[in-house]
Amino acid sequence: MVRIITVTTDFGQKDSYVGALKGALLSVNPNAVIVDICNDISPGAIQEAAFILSGAYASFPPGSIHLGVVDPGVGSGRRAIIVETAKHTFVGPDNGLFSFALSRESIVKRVNITKSGYFNNPVSPTFHGRDIFAPVAGHLSLGVEAEAFGTVADSIVTLPVSLPLFKGGELSGTVIHIDGFGNIITSIKEPDMLLYFPGAQASQLTVETGSVKVKGLSATYSDTKEGSGVALIGSSGYLEVALNGGSCAASFNVKVGEKVRVTGERGE
Amino acid sequence: MVRIITVTTDFGQKDSYVGALKGALLSVNPNAVIVDICNDISPGAIQEAAFILSGAYASFPPGSIHLGVVDPGVGSGRRAIIVETAKHTFVGPDNGLFSFALSRESIVKRVNITKSGYFNNPVSPTFHGRDIFAPVAGHLSLGVEAEAFGTVADSIVTLPVSLPLFKGGELSGTVIHIDGFGNIITSIKEPDMLLYFPGAQASQLTVETGSVKVKGLSATYSDTKEGSGVALIGSSGYLEVALNGGSCAASFNVKVGEKVRVTGERGE
Amino acid sequence: MVRIITVTTDFGQKDSYVGALKGALLSVNPNAVIVDICNDISPGAIQEAAFILSGAYASFPPGSIHLGVVDPGVGSGRRAIIVETAKHTFVGPDNGLFSFALSRESIVKRVNITKSGYFNNPVSPTFHGRDIFAPVAGHLSLGVEAEAFGTVADSIVTLPVSLPLFKGGELSGTVIHIDGFGNIITSIKEPDMLLYFPGAQASQLTVETGSVKVKGLSATYSDTKEGSGVALIGSSGYLEVALNGGSCAASFNVKVGEKVRVTGERGE
Repeated sequence: MVRIITVTTDFGQKDSYVGALKGALLSVNPNAVIVDICNDISPGAIQEAAFILSGAYASFPPGSIHLGVVDPGVGSGRRAIIVETAKHTFVGPDNGLFSFALSRESIVKRVNITKSGYFNNPVSPTFHGRDIFAPVAGHLSLGVEAEAFGTVADSIVTLPVSLPLFKGGELSGTVIHIDGFGNIITSIKEPDMLLYFPGAQASQLTVETGSVKVKGLSATYSDTKEGSGVALIGSSGYLEVALNGGSCAASFNVKVGEKVRVTGERGE
Repeated sequence: MVRIITVTTDFGQKDSYVGALKGALLSVNPNAVIVDICNDISPGAIQEAAFILSGAYASFPPGSIHLGVVDPGVGSGRRAIIVETAKHTFVGPDNGLFSFALSRESIVKRVNITKSGYFNNPVSPTFHGRDIFAPVAGHLSLGVEAEAFGTVADSIVTLPVSLPLFKGGELSGTVIHIDGFGNIITSIKEPDMLLYFPGAQASQLTVETGSVKVKGLSATYSDTKEGSGVALIGSSGYLEVALNGGSCAASFNVKVGEKVRVTGERGE
Repeated sequence: MVRIITVTTDFGQKDSYVGALKGALLSVNPNAVIVDICNDISPGAIQEAAFILSGAYASFPPGSIHLGVVDPGVGSGRRAIIVETAKHTFVGPDNGLFSFALSRESIVKRVNITKSGYFNNPVSPTFHGRDIFAPVAGHLSLGVEAEAFGTVADSIVTLPVSLPLFKGGELSGTVIHIDGFGNIITSIKEPDMLLYFPGAQASQLTVETGSVKVKGLSATYSDTKEGSGVALIGSSGYLEVALNGGSCAASFNVKVGEKVRVTGERGE
């Protein structure tokens, strides 16, 4: 059986760390199929990693293992976990890294990784990715049950999520990510729009963030003329503000954390 | 049978997009072997992507599938295509992305991708890479015939190519790419040199672009002393201007689009 | 038998070069498992590549082939080599690229690659990665013996290593790498510390480089309060100076080559 293992880290691509982690994984299971989700997470940025992971994991086939190592607390008291859901398995530090993905899945098992027999010993206190998480993912991919790696975890760390707020006819949220195209991704999701502006025509809504103001929702980036702003529901279900043919974030100097407002007529 | 699928996109490596595309592909064919050509194409730069693809695809074994997604018109009217040549299959938007590669191959089939039964439904209007092209490439890699995905395409989009010009004893072209070493790659190819300067000694030719002027053609970068300019036919068959031990483009501030001139004595 | 082939180059990720190299490899052995160690080595930086390779290769399973192409002398007189050790095989230019890794291994065979029957002919004088090293690695992965590729090499190029110096109670070395987290990695290794400060308590040692001064050795990055400097033995066995929650190198403007001093009481 082929087992796919995805990798998400803040190791960057200029060092030996991603290679060492993959080598450790392949040393346990030389037949594992390893696929990078992202190794360029900003150093220690757990929330960013949680967002990136949540945008990719669900595209992988059921049975995939998602190894995430953004781990500023490596070697400290933070726990190491395996979380199994109906379709996917997550392995990494218990720091919230998987919480956005897990909020959409039904959790089947949570295990504290403690059985050092599965580790690369001696374990470096600064590189659990290579010495704990990669070998554990390797053994999971060979069919070892999650329970074998430790004891059941009563709870796991969950990152706070700031839900959009509806008040005075205005739906407000924040910018949660700027992608490589300069598209501005907000905390407002499609169901929020449907809930608070039920039956509204897409053309009746206005989206604002920083100095960008877009009237009407479009289906795709090229629905307006080149150089114009466009608001749409992106491929992960979040409200986005973009610029046809350019970087919206750069052009309007919008950054993560900026407020976003949606206004419009409520349908009947 | 192993089917290799190469990936060329402008998705960058800081987002979930490349991972999501690969996950969608592996969800169709978990045994596909995926190899990145480049995911750092400048956003929307079709011509750049066409050049990069044309420099790598031919090294892959016959039967390889080349998935290209640089797609500024995603969700608009632009068509989606499969092009099969004697040795390779190309899948992506019909925007010219494959035209440099195709100019060297004999086309066997051209198909408009229309059969939505092969897509990830519902298709996001902003992410055909994940929802159309990756699953189609996955099904192709499983042996589904190109014809199954739609109807025959009468024509496909081809990017204009500016051919070098020979006038008054001077061959002129343009800079088409600056590589990561700072080597300046020009639109002039080896056969152009042989055609316009037949029988010329390599030492008799002079190549100029911006403020760089190199007398004589070399075989390799280290044929001159360190810090000196060198002109040579590069590994993809284009005339290059480089600096032994440094970035020629940065040192002389040469950019894509700059004019290039070759002069010399014509052999007899 | 699965054969893993790692790839370490200075080709960058914006060009077709890494893709072309992998295509050439897969054209020889479509079943090879290719894993990137790093393709973002600074252009021509042999010493940097040797350090990165030495940090990752040993994590890969015995039998792995390590293809390294940082090759500023491509096409010149420099030799091409295969070096086999008890566990690993290295393929690339004979310029010292493998010497840090090899210093830890017992060499079994050294072969000058000369048999052009294994190459992609005609060989581009500027791209031996694609035309010589990748096909040779491919054939090695198919089980061809190293001897088949040429003649025994009497010696290979080894990079000079500046060993730490102990004088007047002070151990001095240099900064050899700054990693993506801004951690400062020094030429001083754990055994040097044990040799020159035998029996010393970790708390009795002081590490200085540039304007950073850290008292005491820690086990991991988060052992001090956020924003504080920390010195520790890193995951590859080198003494590191880091900042909990930030880039030490950027904060203190420390660069590769900077002096490092360790002082302390010698234990009894």
